[in-house]
Amino acid sequence: MSSYADEPGRGRYDKSMDLFSRATRVIPSGIYGSKNPGFLVAGEYPYFFTRAEGSRVWDADGNEYIDYMCGFGSQILGYGNAEVDRDALARIGDGDLLPCPPPEMVELAEVLAGEIKGMDWSVFAKNGTDATTLAISLARVHTGKPYVLMAEGAYHGAANWCSSNDYPILKDKAEVRTFPYGDIDALRRLFQELRGLIAAVILTPYHHAVFGDSLMPPEGWYPAVEDLCRRERALFIMDDIRANFRLSYAGSHAHFGANPHMVCMGKAVANGHPLAVLMGRGELKKTAGGFFITGTFWMSAGPIIAALKTLEVLKREGVVEGLQDKGRRFRDGLKQAAASEGYELTVSGPPAIPFVRFSSDPDLYHNQVWASRMAAEGIFVHPHHNMFISHAHSEDDFLRTFEAARRAFAYTREHFGD
Amino acid sequence: MSSYADEPGRGRYDKSMDLFSRATRVIPSGIYGSKNPGFLVAGEYPYFFTRAEGSRVWDADGNEYIDYMCGFGSQILGYGNAEVDRDALARIGDGDLLPCPPPEMVELAEVLAGEIKGMDWSVFAKNGTDATTLAISLARVHTGKPYVLMAEGAYHGAANWCSSNDYPILKDKAEVRTFPYGDIDALRRLFQELRGLIAAVILTPYHHAVFGDSLMPPEGWYPAVEDLCRRERALFIMDDIRANFRLSYAGSHAHFGANPHMVCMGKAVANGHPLAVLMGRGELKKTAGGFFITGTFWMSAGPIIAALKTLEVLKREGVVEGLQDKGRRFRDGLKQAAASEGYELTVSGPPAIPFVRFSSDPDLYHNQVWASRMAAEGIFVHPHHNMFISHAHSEDDFLRTFEAARRAFAYTREHFGD
Repeated sequence: MSSYADEPGRGRYDKSMDLFSRATRVIPSGIYGSKNPGFLVAGEYPYFFTRAEGSRVWDADGNEYIDYMCGFGSQILGYGNAEVDRDALARIGDGDLLPCPPPEMVELAEVLAGEIKGMDWSVFAKNGTDATTLAISLARVHTGKPYVLMAEGAYHGAANWCSSNDYPILKDKAEVRTFPYGDIDALRRLFQELRGLIAAVILTPYHHAVFGDSLMPPEGWYPAVEDLCRRERALFIMDDIRANFRLSYAGSHAHFGANPHMVCMGKAVANGHPLAVLMGRGELKKTAGGFFITGTFWMSAGPIIAALKTLEVLKREGVVEGLQDKGRRFRDGLKQAAASEGYELTVSGPPAIPFVRFSSDPDLYHNQVWASRMAAEGIFVHPHHNMFISHAHSEDDFLRTFEAARRAFAYTREHFGD
Repeated sequence: MSSYADEPGRGRYDKSMDLFSRATRVIPSGIYGSKNPGFLVAGEYPYFFTRAEGSRVWDADGNEYIDYMCGFGSQILGYGNAEVDRDALARIGDGDLLPCPPPEMVELAEVLAGEIKGMDWSVFAKNGTDATTLAISLARVHTGKPYVLMAEGAYHGAANWCSSNDYPILKDKAEVRTFPYGDIDALRRLFQELRGLIAAVILTPYHHAVFGDSLMPPEGWYPAVEDLCRRERALFIMDDIRANFRLSYAGSHAHFGANPHMVCMGKAVANGHPLAVLMGRGELKKTAGGFFITGTFWMSAGPIIAALKTLEVLKREGVVEGLQDKGRRFRDGLKQAAASEGYELTVSGPPAIPFVRFSSDPDLYHNQVWASRMAAEGIFVHPHHNMFISHAHSEDDFLRTFEAARRAFAYTREHFGD
């Protein structure tokens, strides 16, 4: 994979660039949203991928990468996991979207109710945003109160109530208020200010802000949040979509000893097949049952069967603990590679979801140069987003990554004259 | 298939019932939304399906049906179309959800821009609701105005702004106003009342209300709507999700000579693979490009490849025209079967999306008895929803359906003493 290292990007992404140029004519921004090249480094990354297997992805120009995005976290067992895909693909071919749900929907809801701590029922949907948006609607209906509190810069999906679309004409944020993550006093002040008006607090299990370090919950955070919610009779919603099954098999809230009323899941739950889940406590089931909840593809069989198999493999192979070990190994190796070139790295977040940056550069300029160079080396890491470790990442992948990283750190040092 | 006709439901749905009983413990309402048995006739229908092929579906008890729901319209080529699924499934196994989009996303956007009348760009999503909700957000941002007008009883998805969830605490409907479908004077009055405040009118190509006849657009409807929008500088959004490719390959708006600013597509576009599309005119591309639009699974390769293949087959085999012919044949045969038992049927909507009811019973009590009896005969028709005809329905399917229908009409006559 290091064969490209001596040709810094020349022609390497030509097909990607050509596709992107065509895309700009027929797609807004060419590629919209979080996959827009503007989130990477223009011209220094592939923009289109054609296939994947295990820990590897191939771009439109045929370049191979060891990938640390895992489909934005979804591919927890690795791309194209044979056991998951065999069952799921067979079923899609034999009838995926039917006029009625498949029996496996019941089985999956039963498995989840047995495994996810404190949660009694499931609603299946497609987008993570479907789950978070439904959760806040149910909280408002259940409590009869309007306000939702969320952390500043938290990502709960691309719906207007929580996304970065700050257009005054959209009123969806009118009853959403934010607080700095982990600041119990600020949260307490909001509860005082809005007493009697708060439907819910929605949190991610730890704070994975965009363009910045991940923050783990401070001491006493969850008991304080839960106490405030109890007094206000507000609901506590855990958005576990990004982190799910990388902290605990029983839900990331179980890892932190938190006791939410509802838990939103997605991404990893079906190893990349499109599925999101909203789970809740029994006391909320009647409210959910009275709410009209539907989507054409929400009960399609394939993703449900993929989720059953994913959960089976996660449990049988002790994947969650394994990922934490792998994550620590990855962090240590990467730090060592950096140190060998005179850099200190700040690695935040859980071991299997590391956010990596140069300690000396919180503005991520070093990340941009280093991560672009990693792409040239055949290692796909995002310059501004956390990485994801999957069950498919091997020690050999890590060793190749550390070697490439050391060269990329050296390149970065030369580039900045550090 | 008529072997069950002499055993009216006894034990026929035992597994479905057992599954439903289990489901009620771990899923709100057991089965939520439009697939809730409450929308059918309790105890007289299967609730869970296990597989499908072409025009046939099999329930959890192993009963076979000729199906007229087509995955709520999605299976326009029939269940498990080999040509669509071969390419799509191969690709899902080789990397479905990648860190970057697949090249075929560009190709699909190019094909759609070339084929869908007046539309220049595409955004791909999962739920039809993603497309309609994005359309009204873009309309509000583009015009700087808040109000959205929609027809009373129209179905534009399950988001709070348009769904049947009428809870005062949810404010999403605060700036949505309704008018009776086809009533130009009522619409004109709304435009007068809200002058300078209207962002968009959203319409389905014809009116497919729940629990009632479908209404085709009256003479002069589209020119009047477009004229009102032009004067108000409001956008006209066509929600073609249910009807797409059953009226015209170029979009149902082309069939009616309408000129919307945006078109929402879904369901049939990928023959049941999860995909929705928002398309728009060039003048709106900059607004869409400036809006943060994203979803984890929105650029997954499988459904995009399924859509490319679906469009290819639709065009190559002249499916759209064929479906209209089939729809007329179906309507005539069904009416004849009814007439032989002394009933007149009212069949409304486009030929391939017929809403069928007894002319004498707009409250659909006769539909419930007749459609339940059809289920016992091995024909799946919904008692309260339009049917869908697919490319996989054969003349033999129709003949069996007409025979069963005649027996079910006779049963209905006896039941009501008509």
